[in-house]
Amino acid sequence: MMLRFECDYTEGCIPEILDAIAKENHTQLCGYSEDPICHRARQKIRALCGGEDVDVHFLVGGTQTNATVIAATLRPHQGVLSAVQGHISCHETGAIEASGHKVIALPTDTGRLTAAQIDTYCAAHWADATHEHIVQPAMVYLSHPAENGTLYTKKDLEDIRRVCDKWELVLYVDGARLGYGLAAEGNDVTIADLAKLTDVFYIGGTKVGALMGEAVVIRNAALKKDFRYMIKHQGGMLAKGWLLGIQFDVLFEDDRYLDISKKAVAQAMRIKKAFEEKGCSFLIESRTNQQFPILHRDILKKFDEHYTYSVWEQVDEDHTAVRFCTSWATTEDQVDLLVADIAGYL
Amino acid sequence: MMLRFECDYTEGCIPEILDAIAKENHTQLCGYSEDPICHRARQKIRALCGGEDVDVHFLVGGTQTNATVIAATLRPHQGVLSAVQGHISCHETGAIEASGHKVIALPTDTGRLTAAQIDTYCAAHWADATHEHIVQPAMVYLSHPAENGTLYTKKDLEDIRRVCDKWELVLYVDGARLGYGLAAEGNDVTIADLAKLTDVFYIGGTKVGALMGEAVVIRNAALKKDFRYMIKHQGGMLAKGWLLGIQFDVLFEDDRYLDISKKAVAQAMRIKKAFEEKGCSFLIESRTNQQFPILHRDILKKFDEHYTYSVWEQVDEDHTAVRFCTSWATTEDQVDLLVADIAGYL
Amino acid sequence: MMLRFECDYTEGCIPEILDAIAKENHTQLCGYSEDPICHRARQKIRALCGGEDVDVHFLVGGTQTNATVIAATLRPHQGVLSAVQGHISCHETGAIEASGHKVIALPTDTGRLTAAQIDTYCAAHWADATHEHIVQPAMVYLSHPAENGTLYTKKDLEDIRRVCDKWELVLYVDGARLGYGLAAEGNDVTIADLAKLTDVFYIGGTKVGALMGEAVVIRNAALKKDFRYMIKHQGGMLAKGWLLGIQFDVLFEDDRYLDISKKAVAQAMRIKKAFEEKGCSFLIESRTNQQFPILHRDILKKFDEHYTYSVWEQVDEDHTAVRFCTSWATTEDQVDLLVADIAGYL
Amino acid sequence: MMLRFECDYTEGCIPEILDAIAKENHTQLCGYSEDPICHRARQKIRALCGGEDVDVHFLVGGTQTNATVIAATLRPHQGVLSAVQGHISCHETGAIEASGHKVIALPTDTGRLTAAQIDTYCAAHWADATHEHIVQPAMVYLSHPAENGTLYTKKDLEDIRRVCDKWELVLYVDGARLGYGLAAEGNDVTIADLAKLTDVFYIGGTKVGALMGEAVVIRNAALKKDFRYMIKHQGGMLAKGWLLGIQFDVLFEDDRYLDISKKAVAQAMRIKKAFEEKGCSFLIESRTNQQFPILHRDILKKFDEHYTYSVWEQVDEDHTAVRFCTSWATTEDQVDLLVADIAGYL
Repeated sequence: MMLRFECDYTEGCIPEILDAIAKENHTQLCGYSEDPICHRARQKIRALCGGEDVDVHFLVGGTQTNATVIAATLRPHQGVLSAVQGHISCHETGAIEASGHKVIALPTDTGRLTAAQIDTYCAAHWADATHEHIVQPAMVYLSHPAENGTLYTKKDLEDIRRVCDKWELVLYVDGARLGYGLAAEGNDVTIADLAKLTDVFYIGGTKVGALMGEAVVIRNAALKKDFRYMIKHQGGMLAKGWLLGIQFDVLFEDDRYLDISKKAVAQAMRIKKAFEEKGCSFLIESRTNQQFPILHRDILKKFDEHYTYSVWEQVDEDHTAVRFCTSWATTEDQVDLLVADIAGYL
Repeated sequence: MMLRFECDYTEGCIPEILDAIAKENHTQLCGYSEDPICHRARQKIRALCGGEDVDVHFLVGGTQTNATVIAATLRPHQGVLSAVQGHISCHETGAIEASGHKVIALPTDTGRLTAAQIDTYCAAHWADATHEHIVQPAMVYLSHPAENGTLYTKKDLEDIRRVCDKWELVLYVDGARLGYGLAAEGNDVTIADLAKLTDVFYIGGTKVGALMGEAVVIRNAALKKDFRYMIKHQGGMLAKGWLLGIQFDVLFEDDRYLDISKKAVAQAMRIKKAFEEKGCSFLIESRTNQQFPILHRDILKKFDEHYTYSVWEQVDEDHTAVRFCTSWATTEDQVDLLVADIAGYL
Repeated sequence: MMLRFECDYTEGCIPEILDAIAKENHTQLCGYSEDPICHRARQKIRALCGGEDVDVHFLVGGTQTNATVIAATLRPHQGVLSAVQGHISCHETGAIEASGHKVIALPTDTGRLTAAQIDTYCAAHWADATHEHIVQPAMVYLSHPAENGTLYTKKDLEDIRRVCDKWELVLYVDGARLGYGLAAEGNDVTIADLAKLTDVFYIGGTKVGALMGEAVVIRNAALKKDFRYMIKHQGGMLAKGWLLGIQFDVLFEDDRYLDISKKAVAQAMRIKKAFEEKGCSFLIESRTNQQFPILHRDILKKFDEHYTYSVWEQVDEDHTAVRFCTSWATTEDQVDLLVADIAGYL
Repeated sequence: MMLRFECDYTEGCIPEILDAIAKENHTQLCGYSEDPICHRARQKIRALCGGEDVDVHFLVGGTQTNATVIAATLRPHQGVLSAVQGHISCHETGAIEASGHKVIALPTDTGRLTAAQIDTYCAAHWADATHEHIVQPAMVYLSHPAENGTLYTKKDLEDIRRVCDKWELVLYVDGARLGYGLAAEGNDVTIADLAKLTDVFYIGGTKVGALMGEAVVIRNAALKKDFRYMIKHQGGMLAKGWLLGIQFDVLFEDDRYLDISKKAVAQAMRIKKAFEEKGCSFLIESRTNQQFPILHRDILKKFDEHYTYSVWEQVDEDHTAVRFCTSWATTEDQVDLLVADIAGYL
């Protein structure tokens, strides 16, 4: 019997969600997220967005959300800037290109774009006499936390916002793991900040307590227009849309979204500490629910007998950076076992 | 308090599905429908397909399924033949065109394509000296039941299959409401027939007892290749794919899929009879869960106070064809009320 | 030796164009239509557009032009209204769908859309409670002359413009054969009218005296933005762009474009008269360079020995509507022969 | 008065082409490259391809050709491998992404892909347990000469062919400047080699003596199927297709294509030698018609008064690599002037 740490979606959902679905299961509701439950969930999310006048839409999954938002934003000759490690750049089987757009992948060591880097790229584009022969940068895609579990600061985002204004770029933040970012030590970015600083972002449900579902928050008026058409156009309009709304309604009851995220991060910190105590180095310093220890292949063989994890990057002939994830579902007991084995194996 | 008959997805799912999800909710499972539950559901569906060697994939919704199957099948210059009333032709916000393909809409009075009609179209295409200037017909899209609740016979499908073979067309059947077709009086088409006669078809879950989900069944080897890439490419790869598999696992336990469909059809037949007894005429003769009575606007006003239904087609200045749907969730009591009011209003 | 009347592009170009190309053949010019010759041609076309502030771009062919203009205009969930006989609807192998857009084909007997028809369609779309599930009409495509050689009046276009304003539709006129429309008896539409009443239109060169080339004229500011990027994106940016500019420069020297068109129409009128004098009926009454006589198959066999024409439509078992085209290149002598044979064959 | 060396398409065409067009200008010919002149040109090209059974199609420009070939080859979830400097990767405004495909850009110092690099990438793709989440590599795009004027050897291409066979990749060679490669000292690749080793390649006309036009040569049977539909679908079907055929007919009369290319290369070698004699270094060692000297900004200012060239790459704060191109049209006299000024300025 394996204990799974390879990703943060190995279990269903928080029990409160299943209860809520069961309670409404036989209620007759209209389709396509136009029901009162979705409206209530939208109101809760709007409240978290401070004074910003935002639209909220519910979609099933992350790739669908990225593809829909980007297709809704760009004209055909435009592309989206992303870290080369960005999810849209390397892990969506061309779902962005499917709607005709180039992902302009910028190299980063950190997995995070910088304002300066975006600025330099755009300045070079527009300075090039043949710029019409090159995909026009028109959007910036960030993940918070980034794919490697690291975080943007509020200052980072403000700087990027300024550059986006300068070059007329739409700023989009993928929050597939947003809860684990909000819950991380040192994070100073709030949902209200994202609502203010981005044109559009999404709050991840699939990885943070829900069965499935992502909540797209749009501040940019041009993007708001006809977004429901775009959802349908992209095959993302869920017939029983209340299933998505109800999950966010439960997640944003009191501080539940943050609370379950904190729990996951706390368990990740225990794993981190366990590796550190054995002198293990990490591919990247992460304070969120993903940890990337670098392990010798002989050590990995021991883990292979009892644990799943993700292979992340070959570091040298003998060493591999791997990923251990916790989630809202990770229990103290599970991490007790892992921590003990870390101490034993290394 | 309104009683809803406007569509067949106003409730959640059969209770057995919620129970099954709750039971596995904390089981750790790998993602993307590669878990044992999905494998078990696939085996059940394969068993229903007779001896055909089919692949089975689970997707979330109908438009997503249509878009994925069609995009996976066609080369860029090819199009798909559909009745002008076909769902892909008029109710998917261009999700088929999104991947670059024309829906070649053929006019029908019945809502169903005929073998002769397909044959004539293809013969004309290939006889045209300038056929390279016209989208090449390469696929046939049918719904069983059709959008208006009517059915193809096995003979119809065999004839269409022959024409598809003649013109090298892929035959695809949309089974969003397949259960209600299988359960209809006079239907002679089985899942095994579809598996044998089509290249690919799907078994609808969303409208037939599931929270969401459609099961794609592929017999055509060329289409099988890389279909999982295609699902991801189209944004349809569900992280917690077991949520789809488990629903089909429950639906195809014993004869449940057929049983719940029969219940829905029986209630629809009660509604049909009630209208008939008042001398009401119908837009179309349907033996499935959708009924299309033609009603005077004064009558409709009475229904408007207590019932929802869909407006289907303006028949003349005073009369409208409307749709009343039942589903697996429709209760005897609900139909008692409706039947009594039909008798009273008309 | 056959005499060709099947289309209006069986010869090269007016000799003045070849002379002009030869004269500049060794001049060093910068690429991509940014040279002085293109600028001069643009100025001539702007002058014809009255006071309208238009951008002018040169493209190689009609399908490329239609695909580029439409892709540049629409958002992904939007479609373009066209007569079912429109070129984009039936003769471009899905080049419009290639960029993800549905051609919403409206039935017409005349081959021409009416303001009322567009109004009715849009009113129905927006009245439909489920309109988000349907491609949004956002553009109107007309051809002037239409594919069957008939013409819009200025009043027609004014009415359509009003409906476009009402429903926020972009109005686009395909002028592949514009010259032959301008030259037709009874035509009251000028290039200045098109510049004023449309958002974008194009002036056909390929069929009216040029080797190849179409001049796109854009009044709508949103469409002007980044149109050169769009040309490149669609593979339509000609390296030696001056080749296009120089042809329009020659065509719009004095009244040459109109003059050569008049010549073609005059020859078409001779053909028309010849058929009429034999009591022949026509599929459609056309005053432009395309004529559509309905002929018995025995008669057609006679023509087949000496002439090429296009088969247009099977009228009954024995009779076919065919197309005879003239062009700027058609000579008096050629038509003498044809006219004599019409008199003899019928 | 500036002398232009910024690219190889600043003039029209070789005079023999204009003569041939003038001679056929009033000949009536059927459209869309189905005329006898195109057939004759195809036969000449087939003859150069050794015994290979190839199809030949004529298109107007390079980006259109790349977009059409790639769209015709790939299924939606597949991508094309290219050097990061490849034309499709950086200079086509997303024309490849327009049909939904990712350009998988591999980093190179040389501008040329290696068999080993392709092999490593594909091995990693297929070894990845989550490969379905990543665009599937299915095609290799090379340019010969590469964008930087360098050349693959026959051995390079044979090695790449082997890797393509191993991973089921379609091999495509962009020959926009093929003539200048064939004419280069040290080149050991022939048109027959390309016909044998690739699935599809194209012979550039636009940059090598023609007004416009590229000849696509297809050996792969799957790609041959319906390629004319694909040309139309991509908006690339030229009405007066004989204009393309006639140019290749003239270019491949005797050894003209090679002869005019040799002349261009000889002039480039004079320029190269002139820079070398002044001790100038080059960004890259090129033996074709493009030369990339690295020049100080003060020197560039001198050239700016009399010459055009392309800015290629900033090497350091003071130095820039620039491109001087020759072409079939470059005269001895023009290069005399440039050579003298190189000697004077540096």
